[in-house]
Amino acid sequence: MKRTSRISDLRNIITEEKKRGRKIAFVPTMGFLHHGHLTLIDKAKETGAFLVVSIFVNPLQFGPNEDLTRYPRDIERDALLVEAAGVDILFHPTVEEMYPEKMVTFVEVGELDEMLCGANRPGHFRGVATVVNKLFNIVQPDMAFFGQKDYQQYLIIKRMVTDLNLPIQICPVPIVREDDGLAMSSRNVFLNPEQRQEALVLSKSLNEAERSIQMGQKSAREVEEQIKKSITLKSQGVIDYVEVRDASDLTEVTDIKRPVLIALAVKFGTTRLIDNKVVEVKRDV
Amino acid sequence: MKRTSRISDLRNIITEEKKRGRKIAFVPTMGFLHHGHLTLIDKAKETGAFLVVSIFVNPLQFGPNEDLTRYPRDIERDALLVEAAGVDILFHPTVEEMYPEKMVTFVEVGELDEMLCGANRPGHFRGVATVVNKLFNIVQPDMAFFGQKDYQQYLIIKRMVTDLNLPIQICPVPIVREDDGLAMSSRNVFLNPEQRQEALVLSKSLNEAERSIQMGQKSAREVEEQIKKSITLKSQGVIDYVEVRDASDLTEVTDIKRPVLIALAVKFGTTRLIDNKVVEVKRDV
Repeated sequence: MKRTSRISDLRNIITEEKKRGRKIAFVPTMGFLHHGHLTLIDKAKETGAFLVVSIFVNPLQFGPNEDLTRYPRDIERDALLVEAAGVDILFHPTVEEMYPEKMVTFVEVGELDEMLCGANRPGHFRGVATVVNKLFNIVQPDMAFFGQKDYQQYLIIKRMVTDLNLPIQICPVPIVREDDGLAMSSRNVFLNPEQRQEALVLSKSLNEAERSIQMGQKSAREVEEQIKKSITLKSQGVIDYVEVRDASDLTEVTDIKRPVLIALAVKFGTTRLIDNKVVEVKRDV
Repeated sequence: MKRTSRISDLRNIITEEKKRGRKIAFVPTMGFLHHGHLTLIDKAKETGAFLVVSIFVNPLQFGPNEDLTRYPRDIERDALLVEAAGVDILFHPTVEEMYPEKMVTFVEVGELDEMLCGANRPGHFRGVATVVNKLFNIVQPDMAFFGQKDYQQYLIIKRMVTDLNLPIQICPVPIVREDDGLAMSSRNVFLNPEQRQEALVLSKSLNEAERSIQMGQKSAREVEEQIKKSITLKSQGVIDYVEVRDASDLTEVTDIKRPVLIALAVKFGTTRLIDNKVVEVKRDV
């Protein structure tokens, strides 16, 4: 596996591969890789394309009071993992390499960026869209892989690609969970044993909500209340949001008729976890 | 010369040329071509690259009370001109082809976009940056050519390319003028004979300002006042702005020490004209 922190090196290598007619697959990450990332990488590997993984903890998407400095990092461990996964090149730029001078250009994906995780993290998705746009321009992939745990991020990137005519196929990959149901996240390492146990309420309440919708529950508000009640009863988690939204564009939903996204963000101590589930709705027969 | 209004056609053709190892040169325009555009095209032609010209009057960069509907158009005349100039492919998409659904993604180049032409045209440069970003993603050129008449636009595009890591060389081309000094513009056709005559005050006052700076004038405010006085005395033009700015980043200037941009926008009747001049400053010996 090749490995570089330089944009110019990466470009040279990718240009050579393209000249040989190879497609490029890309998995952008913030590192501290877990089984969810490795699933993304496996999916990308299956395409047979030249496989680029980036590791970059992007300051632009963290708010001033967020966990940028304590975000977990372990580049050497990550490098071993991606090498074993058959990645062709690991790109791990420094902040200076990605932002050599003050940025004045930003990519904004309106409408989708102010709700859910955007409401309490102003500027977060602007930071995400901008860095992903930069990475896309650097890597120029044919396909890029995003996990559905960050469902809103996935929709925002998909919309950016459509609106800006980027010639890139955005491939979503389902959430990967621990055996007991907790959605995998680099931030899970911050949970103490009690919080780790309590956090199971997230996936459990999502599963319950799914069953309730499949049994005929049509009220988005009632589904939300049911989940909030479970979380409050069974944990000390502080709810940021629990929302039932249209799965295609995140618009608000009153009556559940089409596929919905049930999304939530809950803080356990100082650690904010997110989880979600897309629920298909059976047609009335 | 090939000609298409379809993004997919254009992409297929460009992909074939790239496979053959050809570089791509790109000249984006809003059509109704004049000698200024043809100079851009000639410069692009000199590179020996496969030459793409686009003609698209971009609604996104026109304000609600601006001249989108009356902006002059003559695609058949334009097609003859670009064919004669040796262009390889003319891309003239419809509005529906460029904006098939409601846009929610925008590229914003902060700081540079709110002054000068941005001050009285809110959203204008956001519309420019966004459509140029789209066109760059569609054409994927190695080089793109921009006229310095739209100096602020040129700087904004250059900054967007740097900040977003677009692998494109931005090539500026000097202003082309009529024999009597008027900067060429598609909007000049709207001037009546009297306005056409009066509009000469723009280039003349820029030339006078340049001489005055070369003779030792250091005060940006005095240069601006001198130009405003000339325009007001010698024409019925209504001044939008006359400003002396740093030529590299358009920041405000008090004492003229480094190269400056003198930029102005003046309305003659309903027709808004812009012109500018970059003035080098002789070092004190």
